[in-house]
Amino acid sequence: MMLDQFQSRFHALRSNKLFESLVIAVILFSALVIGAKTYDMPPALLSVVSVLDVAVTLFFLVEIIIRFVAEEDKRAFFRKGWNLFDTLIVVVSLIPIEDSEMALVGRLIRIFRVLRMVSVVPELRILLNSLLKALPQLGYVILLMFIIFYIYAAVGATFFAPINEVLWGDISIAMLTLFRVMTFEDWTDVMYETMAVYPMSWMFYLSFIFLTTFAFLNMVIGIVVNVMENEHADAKAAQAEADGEPTLADLSQQIDELKSVVLAQQQMIEAERSRSE
Amino acid sequence: MMLDQFQSRFHALRSNKLFESLVIAVILFSALVIGAKTYDMPPALLSVVSVLDVAVTLFFLVEIIIRFVAEEDKRAFFRKGWNLFDTLIVVVSLIPIEDSEMALVGRLIRIFRVLRMVSVVPELRILLNSLLKALPQLGYVILLMFIIFYIYAAVGATFFAPINEVLWGDISIAMLTLFRVMTFEDWTDVMYETMAVYPMSWMFYLSFIFLTTFAFLNMVIGIVVNVMENEHADAKAAQAEADGEPTLADLSQQIDELKSVVLAQQQMIEAERSRSE
Amino acid sequence: MMLDQFQSRFHALRSNKLFESLVIAVILFSALVIGAKTYDMPPALLSVVSVLDVAVTLFFLVEIIIRFVAEEDKRAFFRKGWNLFDTLIVVVSLIPIEDSEMALVGRLIRIFRVLRMVSVVPELRILLNSLLKALPQLGYVILLMFIIFYIYAAVGATFFAPINEVLWGDISIAMLTLFRVMTFEDWTDVMYETMAVYPMSWMFYLSFIFLTTFAFLNMVIGIVVNVMENEHADAKAAQAEADGEPTLADLSQQIDELKSVVLAQQQMIEAERSRSE
Amino acid sequence: MMLDQFQSRFHALRSNKLFESLVIAVILFSALVIGAKTYDMPPALLSVVSVLDVAVTLFFLVEIIIRFVAEEDKRAFFRKGWNLFDTLIVVVSLIPIEDSEMALVGRLIRIFRVLRMVSVVPELRILLNSLLKALPQLGYVILLMFIIFYIYAAVGATFFAPINEVLWGDISIAMLTLFRVMTFEDWTDVMYETMAVYPMSWMFYLSFIFLTTFAFLNMVIGIVVNVMENEHADAKAAQAEADGEPTLADLSQQIDELKSVVLAQQQMIEAERSRSE
Repeated sequence: MMLDQFQSRFHALRSNKLFESLVIAVILFSALVIGAKTYDMPPALLSVVSVLDVAVTLFFLVEIIIRFVAEEDKRAFFRKGWNLFDTLIVVVSLIPIEDSEMALVGRLIRIFRVLRMVSVVPELRILLNSLLKALPQLGYVILLMFIIFYIYAAVGATFFAPINEVLWGDISIAMLTLFRVMTFEDWTDVMYETMAVYPMSWMFYLSFIFLTTFAFLNMVIGIVVNVMENEHADAKAAQAEADGEPTLADLSQQIDELKSVVLAQQQMIEAERSRSE
Repeated sequence: MMLDQFQSRFHALRSNKLFESLVIAVILFSALVIGAKTYDMPPALLSVVSVLDVAVTLFFLVEIIIRFVAEEDKRAFFRKGWNLFDTLIVVVSLIPIEDSEMALVGRLIRIFRVLRMVSVVPELRILLNSLLKALPQLGYVILLMFIIFYIYAAVGATFFAPINEVLWGDISIAMLTLFRVMTFEDWTDVMYETMAVYPMSWMFYLSFIFLTTFAFLNMVIGIVVNVMENEHADAKAAQAEADGEPTLADLSQQIDELKSVVLAQQQMIEAERSRSE
Repeated sequence: MMLDQFQSRFHALRSNKLFESLVIAVILFSALVIGAKTYDMPPALLSVVSVLDVAVTLFFLVEIIIRFVAEEDKRAFFRKGWNLFDTLIVVVSLIPIEDSEMALVGRLIRIFRVLRMVSVVPELRILLNSLLKALPQLGYVILLMFIIFYIYAAVGATFFAPINEVLWGDISIAMLTLFRVMTFEDWTDVMYETMAVYPMSWMFYLSFIFLTTFAFLNMVIGIVVNVMENEHADAKAAQAEADGEPTLADLSQQIDELKSVVLAQQQMIEAERSRSE
Repeated sequence: MMLDQFQSRFHALRSNKLFESLVIAVILFSALVIGAKTYDMPPALLSVVSVLDVAVTLFFLVEIIIRFVAEEDKRAFFRKGWNLFDTLIVVVSLIPIEDSEMALVGRLIRIFRVLRMVSVVPELRILLNSLLKALPQLGYVILLMFIIFYIYAAVGATFFAPINEVLWGDISIAMLTLFRVMTFEDWTDVMYETMAVYPMSWMFYLSFIFLTTFAFLNMVIGIVVNVMENEHADAKAAQAEADGEPTLADLSQQIDELKSVVLAQQQMIEAERSRSE
């Protein structure tokens, strides 16, 4: 019973605009603390920052408990990806770490707390979801691009490895080099080096650039067309509902109704005639 | 009364095409003077240019006074951003500056006078306004991009600062370095340096490039879709008005009217029948 | 008769989902083997890999025979480009090569076996076909771009060859250099070098960049417009079929039919009147 | 009279597909000769090439005379830009040049003969015209971009000239440097150099990159929207004509006609009634 009371109170708190703003403010503050840590600081300030860090962690812990208690269906709470993400970030922050190896991981976790901005601001959550939703539709284009990369990397590692071990040593290094070529980053240096041994190797680079550019273009166009079509369909549906504009089918029905009226009239006239005869 | 007379005369002057062309000509001339100053000039020419500079400043002062007097609602004058901008530029140009520190600011102000081109030519003003109008709609994408930059910069500054203080020294320098990576400017040099210490750090760069490219793409598509939809709606409305093409709703109403005519006819026939019976 | 039996069995086998998955798995495995070969391996592993290589080749041979026997029209088999590609890859893999020159070709052929992924997965085949279909429509833009490249390369090779033989030695090297300029890869180094001799040569580079960027942009827009129009037409046709939404022509016909009904009625009334007179 | 005969014959010849192919073949051949000249050639081949060069010039002269005689309206001939271009190229090729200075111009003219490809192939002429037609519509965006460049170049030349005379010496050099920054070509080198003196100068570069990217994007979208709208309008008009699909206005008129029929009927009935009374 007391828990129920808590739940309804926490639910009200969670939906409170002021509480949401406070959470955003704390996240922003923790982001600033993270940024401040990258500057050289006097030891006095450093200890202040450590205390603030603990305060932020505790605040987040309290917040996640409030959110958990406020949730009616406890199981549904952990079914939402963002809740899991938030809980993980808070729990890992709580583990005290002394080891220098783990200290880096601890700092990393603190940085990822900034991502909580996305989980708290609904507009950002929607935006990120729509970005993620666009990815699987491009699955086969990405697969095709990976195949192109793999084949070119295999050819490059086979032929160019003796020329430059650093760039073409094995297939994974070769793929990184090819990504560099795709971004046009000093790609001619890479090419001139291999052209000294294989004079025709410019064909390797040019064909690769054409293929990846073309595939990338196709991917972009795919997204554009998809987004625009969805927007278009949404706009059309929204407009139809808002304006009360009749569809062609509505008009067709109207004409049919009119026809039946005229036909009924005709029957009436015929009946009249037969009566008068 | 005399002021009223001035006002109407100045209003006529302000709207005069010749006066507008003169203002544009003076702005162009002042732009040329600014350009000329960047070349090495003999002292004689330099003093000529200084005189011309004063002349341009005075001309702009007179022009802004004419525009102010011509305005009927004096308060509305300062409510327009471009008027404020023009007045500020002119007023600051009038302050005599001897100090070498301030001299640079004075030169800067003179350069910004070229921007008056935008405030004078209506087409440019409209273009700039439409550009500015597109920005807020992209607010959340820009915020998301900033969060991505901030997190990667924090990670970069935390791990790579000992490797290269110049590129990853603190979070603001790290953000500048990441912007450089985003423009693909010698980004592999940055990457190879950190890969020597952290062999897996290519994941840091590649994931960053993918995320920012994808977010940027989304931003561009957002603008395209938005612009096209507005254009489309405008074109549709303009066409409907111009052609007098009826809408589906117009047609629906026409059919309804016809139906009422037919029904009236029917009643008439029925009345006839009942009468003849 | 036995052959017929084989054919129907093999046909069933070819269409079997499990068989398709097995083929994809073997291709993936052969891709991994190819990747593994680019790393330094102990001799023991190397001989294992050679055996696996032979096994893959034999598997592909068996698979292609199954596909050939399963095909009812033997001639149609070789009319499909992908079948020819598959057969060629398998046949060349079978030739034993000792010569070191040919060994490289053999390794190349083994790498191209990864491309069989495209010939086996139908979605990738469709994607590649649609990419190839988009190319010819862009024929004239590509021709125009080639003419621009050729003219600029001829001008560059004529004037800049004495400045830098490596970049502008002859027309084919000059075209490669211009492609480099088009990708903005250290293009200012190329420009500054020639500007030392011909101070106005920046016009050469800037005009080239503007022309190629503009032509490229036009090409991209050409593809976008084309793709969107096809999508639009497809969507429209699909919607019309699905919804059973009447067209304007249908409505027009409906009104005409109504008119003929009304006219028939009128004739009836007139007949009535003439009778009653 | 003989001239008339010539004219009709030449007109037939000009329109002859074979003649057109011959002209294209000669242009292609002259392009190959131009390309060949950029390679080192033995003297014997060089003299053969010179003879071929004269032959090509003579062929072009004959061709242009045929085209001129074939033209009925001699004045209209010179009103077409491409004819003027062709004539100029041929006439300048005829001038014998010995002077080494002029020899380069002569070679340049010979190179521009490849552009005759565009004047001869109708599809390329249409493509180029459509590209040129798109330019003026973008006039104000280009003007705005030029103003941005000019202001940043003036600021750059004013503040950074003492830092690097080669990059920021005067306003025209500064504009070239800014174009380099816009193409992201080693722009961080330029920035780091000025940041050593003015630590906040990164704002100069970042704001410039944002402004130009945004303006460029706007330009591209402007072209896309424009092209698509034209395509859309063309497609709509073409479809309406082809299908004989009625417009909404047609339907409206049909309903109006039907209404007048019904009304006439009503009057008839009323007349009947008044008669029977």
